[in-house]
Amino acid sequence: MDLKITAAVDIGGAAVSLQGLPLEILLAHLEKGGRVEDLPGYGQKGYTGVKALTSDAGDLLVETTPTNIKDGEPGLTHIRTALSRGKHVVTAAKGPLVLRYQELKGLAQKTKAKLMISAATAAALPTLDVGLSCLAGTEVLSAEGILNGTTNYILTRMHEEGTPYADALAEAQRMGVAEPDPSLDVEGRDTGNKILLIANEVFQAGLSLPDVSVKGITKVTPAEIEQAKREGKVIKLIGKVEKKDGKVVASVAPVALPADHPLAGIRGTEKAISYLTDTMDRVTVSGGKSNPVGAAAALLKDIIRIYKG
Amino acid sequence: MDLKITAAVDIGGAAVSLQGLPLEILLAHLEKGGRVEDLPGYGQKGYTGVKALTSDAGDLLVETTPTNIKDGEPGLTHIRTALSRGKHVVTAAKGPLVLRYQELKGLAQKTKAKLMISAATAAALPTLDVGLSCLAGTEVLSAEGILNGTTNYILTRMHEEGTPYADALAEAQRMGVAEPDPSLDVEGRDTGNKILLIANEVFQAGLSLPDVSVKGITKVTPAEIEQAKREGKVIKLIGKVEKKDGKVVASVAPVALPADHPLAGIRGTEKAISYLTDTMDRVTVSGGKSNPVGAAAALLKDIIRIYKG
Repeated sequence: MDLKITAAVDIGGAAVSLQGLPLEILLAHLEKGGRVEDLPGYGQKGYTGVKALTSDAGDLLVETTPTNIKDGEPGLTHIRTALSRGKHVVTAAKGPLVLRYQELKGLAQKTKAKLMISAATAAALPTLDVGLSCLAGTEVLSAEGILNGTTNYILTRMHEEGTPYADALAEAQRMGVAEPDPSLDVEGRDTGNKILLIANEVFQAGLSLPDVSVKGITKVTPAEIEQAKREGKVIKLIGKVEKKDGKVVASVAPVALPADHPLAGIRGTEKAISYLTDTMDRVTVSGGKSNPVGAAAALLKDIIRIYKG
Repeated sequence: MDLKITAAVDIGGAAVSLQGLPLEILLAHLEKGGRVEDLPGYGQKGYTGVKALTSDAGDLLVETTPTNIKDGEPGLTHIRTALSRGKHVVTAAKGPLVLRYQELKGLAQKTKAKLMISAATAAALPTLDVGLSCLAGTEVLSAEGILNGTTNYILTRMHEEGTPYADALAEAQRMGVAEPDPSLDVEGRDTGNKILLIANEVFQAGLSLPDVSVKGITKVTPAEIEQAKREGKVIKLIGKVEKKDGKVVASVAPVALPADHPLAGIRGTEKAISYLTDTMDRVTVSGGKSNPVGAAAALLKDIIRIYKG
């Protein structure tokens, strides 16, 4: 595969070249703290993502704007613009997907563009690949995932060392495992966003965010952890999708798992997802680096799969 | 997808119909103990696989003859015949692949047919899907697998209950987990066959069976198990592929894994494989039903992926 990057866009402008940007020069420039709009010979101040996407430059958008769950912008406009012109989209931004999944999927179908979202659903952990491709031909009955490294780290500390929640959170923040504002993670909303996308992709559930019941880990007490331990169990924050009375139901909550559950041994910042199927029984996948390199690897994987199937 | 089965071939003959066999009638006939060559209206005594594959009937072979590691027959001739005529092949038979991997892959490339071998490499456990598709774009540095349920069952009993090898094997045979002649499993050769195929598919290693060093579990003693336990380790039969000095090396041997190794917790007849990559770190997949239904599900998955990508 010979890929050309025709535009690299940031908030202040872009570096643009229909012949393809010189990648080594661009990366060296960025590593020195330079901005794309200042790249000599290629930089253009005020050049926007929408401008790049309405030009003839490129046939694929890699969307990595910060996740915005309020209105999905600017990613939502970027993705809409790309898909409506038949350009493929590979995205790490959860906001547009969480808010407008059906619309964007429909748009992609209409223009025969591909919308690939591995990087938005636990990145290097191949949640969707396994659910869609490795299990093709089975009926997937349920999915249970540990999809957030921060909360799993906190719960692991609470379980293994008896650390109270507030102390485990403070430690996670000191180590850079938890954000200064950890609410998206600890309130279960990050897990909720991911399990919503998994429900819609793997189960074609057609769910929206309000359909997902979400409970985080902020109320988990040392007493509950101790009680679980006495019963040979371990409390994990589980995002779950299951079929109930013909409907697909998605939820997030702390669950006491028995020791032989395939997710019981997932420790620290590790993530995992376990699918139950009719003909292949249970298939569980774990791991995948939880950092920007892992997310970039997931974006690259989706790009490769668009062009090489 | 609308699939037609144009020929169902067994050792004594076949049921054949260019318009497609009536699947429900065929299955009901087989369930009552009938043979394909006696199916009213469709059965033909003496009709062979080669005859079906040299006719115009069908564009895909599902090969499920018993594994024959001596000369790969009759699967080898079936697969050669299909691929040389541009027919796709989905196979559960390891013999032809283990003996003639390069030849068959080359043949498939030449005629632009697809050769899909999920069912021959741990069946419902998606070893190749994860190694090839979920990790696309990464450099895979190593693969370690528990690829044989029988030996993992025996080692689990030895570890958890202190059962000596001979007793654990006898128990596995009583339970139908081990064959009356268990040598293919306990001598590590089944794991060797699978890890050879994984090395050739995922690492494009170009290896042959004699290149794989194979040591089974027949010599593992309770004393070794106890010693491993004292060190907090657990002995597992590991099939491994790794890059060493620019070469790809494949081996099978009992290995004492530390308790936090992702394969240490794989118990009983369960199987798993763990890939180490440059950009996604470690990705481990476990589970997948180890029975004829699981194998059939793996065959169906490969068929779907041939036609739907």
